[in-house]
Amino acid sequence: MGARQLHLNLFIHDTGHHEASWRLPSSDPHANLSLEAHQHLARVAEAAKFDSLFLADSPAMFGDPGRRPAGRIEPTVLLSALAVSTRRIGLIATASTSYNEPFNLARRLASVDHLSGGRAGWNIVTTAGDGAARNFGLEGQPLHKTRYERADEFVDVATKLWDSWADDAIVADKDAGVHAVRDRVRAISHSGTHFSVDGPLNLPRSPQGHPLLVQAGSSEDGKEFAARWAEAIFTAQPTLAETQTFYADIKRRVVAAGRNPDHVLVLPGIVPVLGETEAEARELEAELDRLIAPEYALAQLTQLLRVSSDRLSLDEELPAELPSEDSIEGAKSRYTLIVDWARRDRLTVRELIGKLGGGRGHRTVAGTPVQIADTIQHYFENGAADGFNIMPAVLPSGLDAFARSVVPILQERGLFRTEYSGVTLRDHYGLPRPGDRPDLGVEGVAS
Amino acid sequence: MGARQLHLNLFIHDTGHHEASWRLPSSDPHANLSLEAHQHLARVAEAAKFDSLFLADSPAMFGDPGRRPAGRIEPTVLLSALAVSTRRIGLIATASTSYNEPFNLARRLASVDHLSGGRAGWNIVTTAGDGAARNFGLEGQPLHKTRYERADEFVDVATKLWDSWADDAIVADKDAGVHAVRDRVRAISHSGTHFSVDGPLNLPRSPQGHPLLVQAGSSEDGKEFAARWAEAIFTAQPTLAETQTFYADIKRRVVAAGRNPDHVLVLPGIVPVLGETEAEARELEAELDRLIAPEYALAQLTQLLRVSSDRLSLDEELPAELPSEDSIEGAKSRYTLIVDWARRDRLTVRELIGKLGGGRGHRTVAGTPVQIADTIQHYFENGAADGFNIMPAVLPSGLDAFARSVVPILQERGLFRTEYSGVTLRDHYGLPRPGDRPDLGVEGVAS
Repeated sequence: MGARQLHLNLFIHDTGHHEASWRLPSSDPHANLSLEAHQHLARVAEAAKFDSLFLADSPAMFGDPGRRPAGRIEPTVLLSALAVSTRRIGLIATASTSYNEPFNLARRLASVDHLSGGRAGWNIVTTAGDGAARNFGLEGQPLHKTRYERADEFVDVATKLWDSWADDAIVADKDAGVHAVRDRVRAISHSGTHFSVDGPLNLPRSPQGHPLLVQAGSSEDGKEFAARWAEAIFTAQPTLAETQTFYADIKRRVVAAGRNPDHVLVLPGIVPVLGETEAEARELEAELDRLIAPEYALAQLTQLLRVSSDRLSLDEELPAELPSEDSIEGAKSRYTLIVDWARRDRLTVRELIGKLGGGRGHRTVAGTPVQIADTIQHYFENGAADGFNIMPAVLPSGLDAFARSVVPILQERGLFRTEYSGVTLRDHYGLPRPGDRPDLGVEGVAS
Repeated sequence: MGARQLHLNLFIHDTGHHEASWRLPSSDPHANLSLEAHQHLARVAEAAKFDSLFLADSPAMFGDPGRRPAGRIEPTVLLSALAVSTRRIGLIATASTSYNEPFNLARRLASVDHLSGGRAGWNIVTTAGDGAARNFGLEGQPLHKTRYERADEFVDVATKLWDSWADDAIVADKDAGVHAVRDRVRAISHSGTHFSVDGPLNLPRSPQGHPLLVQAGSSEDGKEFAARWAEAIFTAQPTLAETQTFYADIKRRVVAAGRNPDHVLVLPGIVPVLGETEAEARELEAELDRLIAPEYALAQLTQLLRVSSDRLSLDEELPAELPSEDSIEGAKSRYTLIVDWARRDRLTVRELIGKLGGGRGHRTVAGTPVQIADTIQHYFENGAADGFNIMPAVLPSGLDAFARSVVPILQERGLFRTEYSGVTLRDHYGLPRPGDRPDLGVEGVAS
């Protein structure tokens, strides 16, 4: 089957991406902390031949614990448990470059890659928000630009650490008493603006060489960072036209950075809300929106838009005067996306809350399995996507339905695998394994 | 069975604690990176009803990669995989207070406690050595005293974060749309010398309240730290008399710190080398010692003792003049232990190397199952131990033999459980679950 194939990633989020999903009668409101709930999702996605699953994260409270499940198992720890519970599916952890040290994080990600037989990925985030900063001795978040500069050096250090053992370093010669060839285990002697790290890593090179590098920021800094480092990109785009523009822009930047555009996959987020009929799907969507508490959502929107609550009125459009993106130090591109969307579709604040609660800026598609498969195919064949980040509004039911009803249609159309052809996450995504770096730290030999 | 029962912890170390164990024909020289090898050890220890298993760690290369397996899967990641592979045994990870941030580490340990249903423990270390320091932007290790001051504040912050959600915070009231009661999720607002951490943790209180706190330092600072915080103590003592002295000293310090001495378990390390006859056991020990490369061991000893290599001679005793413990900024108590041991037993450098290679200062007992059971019982009944940290010289065979031949003797003598009576690691160790702290951060409500 030589035809271009699409890639599917499952974005796991508690009881679903719709923020009121936990309130449905069928939902387990403790799913966010449940190993069994996560194992079920991982196994269903693997049976459906998904490329990977993915966990978002921030080292701070996510949302208001009074209103929705706010606790999160740390992703590298959770993915290790899921590695034991699955055999093929890729496992992508979000981790922050602003609130970790490169040695520790590079090691944990390589550890997951070893334990999973080459199925680890890292969604690289710089972590917006003062809440996280105040858990790490800072008064508030570092500037957006500073965060990206640190991220750049962080990934540079991490990849050097992953390459600090040559692929053929270990010989395990019992007779000679030689376990590794010493000059194949190399100090990295990194000394930079943010980090000084001697190395080598205390872990041999992992099955994939480097865990897969994923990125999701869409600001100017974020897109330039992605062009340099990312191998897969998750993105929130509300329309086909905007997704096509983003796709073309990213591929152009990747080429400009001297990289092969086929080695950077763009996976827009999509929130499928499935029904046997379109009417049934729309009724589920409406039921979820009714469960959003408006005063809570209003408070969230106030925070996102940096406006005081008395300037927002539920049944009116957004005020004409809002801060410019330049003044936003948080999730810049998300801010602009939401404001543009509200203005273009002339949404009232109440309508905007419904859209955000459903997919937080990602495209929600309520419909039948054929309608959703059609949307996916249309994007895939019209320069908008190499695959999709599947974000079911309700879990596990939305994944179960997608796996049962949408995946077979994509397979019948020859767009999606019916069996894994490789072993590692890089195999699934069709991405090369990074080569060894024999030039690394030639002056340094491990002590 | 009301009689006092002993506790057994399995200290996992690659192919065994004898540093030449990887060179035995039966050893898997890649066991250090093998999920399956660790799963086997965990399952054998659980079938033998061990209280717990334990992984040592440092964020730097451990030993010379040329001479022995030097890579280590990061412990919280590995224990998460083992949590899925077992049901009852406790899981203790070593992690450094000098090279982690409290928010991240408290969260990962609580994550393992959630995923394992209350089986997580934390061996708190301050991490000696310049190698680790130079992986984290420092020129060399912080002073011993500074490391312990940071450790003290670190554990204070971690326990506050673990208590930042009340046990009854989550109500998950779907009708009312209330997931947690907001004033039961509390900022910790910690502002200290080493850390400023707002909190709350982004994870509800874990099954054990706090993961079990373990400690292994035996310097003055280390023992004072243990008296304040530790619930189980691993210790290296070469003779019964020294172990008794240590045991009495620790219990006295615990009482002086206002704590219940029964809530702090002392577990000396023991390296069993088993044979069907004593002669067979001694032959295995001798075979292992012959596999130690002396020039390598000499280099290690040189580093440990801070003397130049031309001052050590393989067939002579240690030089009379050596640095004092006060001048050692590394593992102080280990240094003194080794020097005293060599002097007392008038060991040549070659003999000392054999002892160190076998158990790194821990007591090696080569003998039959009955002899080893006798030693354990004698310590346990003579004020030297509440249990043992079992460090097989060779893995998995040494554990398999211990589980098959020594554990049944201990069970027959009524000294060790024949079935788990509880669920959590605290249950196994007979230690209380820390209570909630309703006074915590009363001024702070989660945002």
